[in-house]
Formats: sequence, structure tokens, C-alpha cells
Amino acid sequence: MDSSEKDIFYMRKALELARCAYDAGDTPIGAVLVYEDRIIGSGYNKRNALKSPLMHAEIEAIREGAAVIGDWRLEDTTMYITLEPCPMCAGAIVQARIPRVVVGAMNPKAGCAGSVINLLQMQGFNHRAELVTGVLEEESAELLRSFFGRLREQDRINRQEGTENSE
Amino acid sequence: MDSSEKDIFYMRKALELARCAYDAGDTPIGAVLVYEDRIIGSGYNKRNALKSPLMHAEIEAIREGAAVIGDWRLEDTTMYITLEPCPMCAGAIVQARIPRVVVGAMNPKAGCAGSVINLLQMQGFNHRAELVTGVLEEESAELLRSFFGRLREQDRINRQEGTENSE
Repeated sequence: MDSSEKDIFYMRKALELARCAYDAGDTPIGAVLVYEDRIIGSGYNKRNALKSPLMHAEIEAIREGAAVIGDWRLEDTTMYITLEPCPMCAGAIVQARIPRVVVGAMNPKAGCAGSVINLLQMQGFNHRAELVTGVLEEESAELLRSFFGRLREQDRINRQEGTENSE
Repeated sequence: MDSSEKDIFYMRKALELARCAYDAGDTPIGAVLVYEDRIIGSGYNKRNALKSPLMHAEIEAIREGAAVIGDWRLEDTTMYITLEPCPMCAGAIVQARIPRVVVGAMNPKAGCAGSVINLLQMQGFNHRAELVTGVLEEESAELLRSFFGRLREQDRINRQEGTENSE
């Protein structure tokens, strides 16, 4: 496999994890961390499931990866994420010195790999990552659209039932 | 106690935790999270001790606080940190919707509460925190200076011993 085929291969793995979040009722975001052609960390968003603001896909993948490598520096790794990272996760990637990040869909409202700001490539920090965006972008965006569409539909049904019960 | 006395009281607690990091050989940074006049989360930097890029003081305090409150939203809390937060921790504070942050010393090289950038008060994000800086600043800065001074001294001794052994 060449580099772009590998990126698609690992992004598919991240998308499989995003679907686990979807099925559990959390915003579908998945991440895998790759070192020497194997996955050493993976995660999906569990913010609602575990009621914790820290339980993002990337944080789980970094925690597992650091345990495998045995260091806080995750050099020579690549992080695959189905959605552009939030400030916390972009910051964690910088802290972990992850040298390469591959992103699926962008997040115009909160993304920190170029949308609101680009924390992965700030002149002011002592680490900057190589960044590839748009890998399986449509699959990731479609999964998110489907999730939020389902949420809105559920919300509509709940409000309708509320109205009927109060009549 | 008025508000500024409370800030000093809780910052002293955060400094006690920073000293735990110092004693364990990690950069001395401590944090406490306060809700309704009690500490619901606390932590100190364990990055080297636990070999994890995620084990910053603030992350530990947020994890504990979320478990106590039972939600990922840590509304009506105040985070006390002896050193200006890094991008990951500033991002975690935004993710957790922490409304008030009190900082001891600033971190010109990597701080994200005004030094390199101010992630706690970005127009682009959907959450902005009230920020107080400079509380027990000198005590925090002195602890950090002492730590790095000790590191340099140890490094000097190690290099000297290395030279003597190779003679």
C-alpha cells in the first residue's frame, strides 16, 4: 500500500469506531493511533455514555498508545480522526508530540486544525504536526448528519408526545 | 472569606499539590476544582511518573470533578491552577464548560490563557471562561525555578561524573 492507501485503510478503522459511538448515542467520532504499521491506540467518543468531558476518541487513543510505547512522547506515530479535533484534543496531540495527523471531515464551529484556529501548526508552540485533511470526508460527514438528523427526529417526537400528554 | 481570600485559600491547596509533583520529580504544577465551596477534584502533574502526555494536573481534577457532579458539564465550578494551562488543558476547561479559572504564574512559552494564545476566551468557541491571573504568582514561579534549578544541577553532576568515568 502507498501512503494515501494506508491513510484510507486506517481512516476506515476510525470510521468503524465512530459507528460504535453512534450506536451508543454519542456524536459519532472515532480515532486510531498508528505506529510502525500497526494500531497501538484507538477510541471513540464516549462523552455522554461516561458523562465525562475528557472521553473523546483522540484522548482514549493517546492513553492506549502511551501505554504501549511506554513514554509520553508518541514520536513516529500517525493519528487518524474522523472529525477535525477540538481544542483539548488538538492540544493533547501537541503535548504527545504526535508528528502526523490525518483528518476526515472538518468542524467549522469548533475545529482546531484550521477551522476556528490551527493548534497543530502554531508558530508559538514547540511542536507542529504534519496535517492531511479530507480523507473519507464524505463518509464521516454523512455519519454525523445521520446522527444529528436522528436526534432532531427524536426531539420532534418527544415534543409531540409532550404536547399530546398535556392536552 | 471574600472572593479574593477564597482564591488565595484554594490556590494554596493547588500549590500543596504542585509540591507533590516536585517531590516525585515532575514539573511542579497543581490544580483544584471547586464547587459550592468544596474541592470536588484535584490533581498534580504526573507526566513523567506515569509516562503519559495526558496526566496533567487539570485533567485529573476535571476527571474527578465530572465523577462527583455526574455530568460532563462542570457548571458553577472554579478551576485553580498554579501555572497557566497548556493547549490541552485550556481546551479541556472549554470542553467541560468551566466558567471561572484562577491562575498562579504565567507560562510565556506554552500558556494558553493569554501568553501564546487565549483559548479560554476565544470568540470562535461556544464557551468562554472568566479569568483571574497572578494569584500567589511568586510562590508558584519560585517552586518552578527551584525545580528547574535542581534539574540543571543534577544534569551538571551527571555530566561531570560521565567525564570522570571516561578519564
